Amino acid sequence: MLVNGESQDTIAIMDRGFQYGDGLFETIEIHSSKPLFLEQHLARLVLGCQKLLIPKPDLVLLRNEIAQLSSNAGSAVLKIIITRGEGGRGYRQPDSIQSTRILSLHPFPHYPENYYSEGISARFCETRLGLSPLLAGVKHLNRLEQVLARAEWGSDEFQEGLMLDIEQHVIEGTMTNLFYVKNGILYTAPITHCGIAGIIRAWIMTQYLVVEDYFSMETLLQSDEIFVCNSIIGIWGIRELVNRHYSIGNMTQTLQHALLCEKQKQVAYENV
Amino acid sequence: MLVNGESQDTIAIMDRGFQYGDGLFETIEIHSSKPLFLEQHLARLVLGCQKLLIPKPDLVLLRNEIAQLSSNAGSAVLKIIITRGEGGRGYRQPDSIQSTRILSLHPFPHYPENYYSEGISARFCETRLGLSPLLAGVKHLNRLEQVLARAEWGSDEFQEGLMLDIEQHVIEGTMTNLFYVKNGILYTAPITHCGIAGIIRAWIMTQYLVVEDYFSMETLLQSDEIFVCNSIIGIWGIRELVNRHYSIGNMTQTLQHALLCEKQKQVAYENV
Repeated sequence: MLVNGESQDTIAIMDRGFQYGDGLFETIEIHSSKPLFLEQHLARLVLGCQKLLIPKPDLVLLRNEIAQLSSNAGSAVLKIIITRGEGGRGYRQPDSIQSTRILSLHPFPHYPENYYSEGISARFCETRLGLSPLLAGVKHLNRLEQVLARAEWGSDEFQEGLMLDIEQHVIEGTMTNLFYVKNGILYTAPITHCGIAGIIRAWIMTQYLVVEDYFSMETLLQSDEIFVCNSIIGIWGIRELVNRHYSIGNMTQTLQHALLCEKQKQVAYENV
Repeated sequence: MLVNGESQDTIAIMDRGFQYGDGLFETIEIHSSKPLFLEQHLARLVLGCQKLLIPKPDLVLLRNEIAQLSSNAGSAVLKIIITRGEGGRGYRQPDSIQSTRILSLHPFPHYPENYYSEGISARFCETRLGLSPLLAGVKHLNRLEQVLARAEWGSDEFQEGLMLDIEQHVIEGTMTNLFYVKNGILYTAPITHCGIAGIIRAWIMTQYLVVEDYFSMETLLQSDEIFVCNSIIGIWGIRELVNRHYSIGNMTQTLQHALLCEKQKQVAYENV
């Protein structure tokens, strides 16, 4: 792990990331020692810093450190955390903010192949997403709702839990964005009041016209195809939800294939 | 600072308090080397742990450490943080949770005497409180909304900012709970959808019958007395809000006096 360029595995207790969850993060797939969708991750990081009024990190430094950590990593997960840095007690930020930059490398989670090829089993969570338009979309460090939703089931019986907001709209998974297909049209929930604006979600929206609109559990259950996505798992179809069974349909498979091609292209042609 | 009983000022990066704001805290006034409202703070801490599914800390250990830090502290602020402890990457909590316990002592902020005697100047914040019934009341580590609200003004022109929820109900201050008096009746907002269930708020509700109901900016501005409270400042009347002026009225002064008496009683008679 690198903290502001130094190798260490601890952080100051007075860092505001710890005191208040005052920061944000990115989770990046490293494939063949190359970070995938790097520009998109960096763009979201910078946008998140703007929204949270945290000075954006030095991107030259950050790119160098990403290259340093990923160059021999093979297949791995790179996590970047940016916080507002150290401060005193109290919510007021220091007059001069020195943000903290943390990079850590983690083993790539090798999920069973059939999650990808045959789909996963999902459930609906009881934990609701609160509504906070100001923070919606940002991959910030205030993640108690996701933690509590994920704590609802412990076993491997389900691979993901789907979350509704407090107005009973289905929004996303605990760690994924959610799409469904009905009569050949692709739908996902807006990320304006809660939820995370995922990198793979945004990429999917460059591939197909996607209708962003709120939908209910019933609408979702009556759809033709359902899938979830994030930067690490890619795209997983849902084959079972509330005892209903779904096939991994044509659009899901097409997107899975297109995403694989995109990743191969990035590995083959792009440099950090 | 004490981390699980050891003197240190850093925390593991993989502590979930840092990764996800996965924990909660208490801020306790130490007066004449005695922690005030200690039982109430401990009770709220335990309740918060229950709500967040974090194993409650060993209270004997915790009390010993509180006594250790406060015994020669004179006038100070003691902050206690409990997190879900270290874990791997991802929201799923470890099968065996070893919570992290952090105690830190901070200088008591000696505010100008006239904040107490003559009241403060307050403003309304643009930042709204999101609605999250599950987390409401808990003094958890997901505090980005308060951080962003406090960042709206930098100067000492205002001593507190009042926050509305996304439905435009006035709820509380960035670091305080909020009460108003109208025709001799005391009002405060419910803490069921957002906000923190403050210790002094709860104490005030043992002194007077308080109507817990939502209210608007207009209702607040047309009230007879307004005050804010927390464990460190005690009770401050608001003398100016949106260019309107208020006197520090009878109920505010009566509660200020009663709170001083209560604190003196605790210092004189109670032991940790």
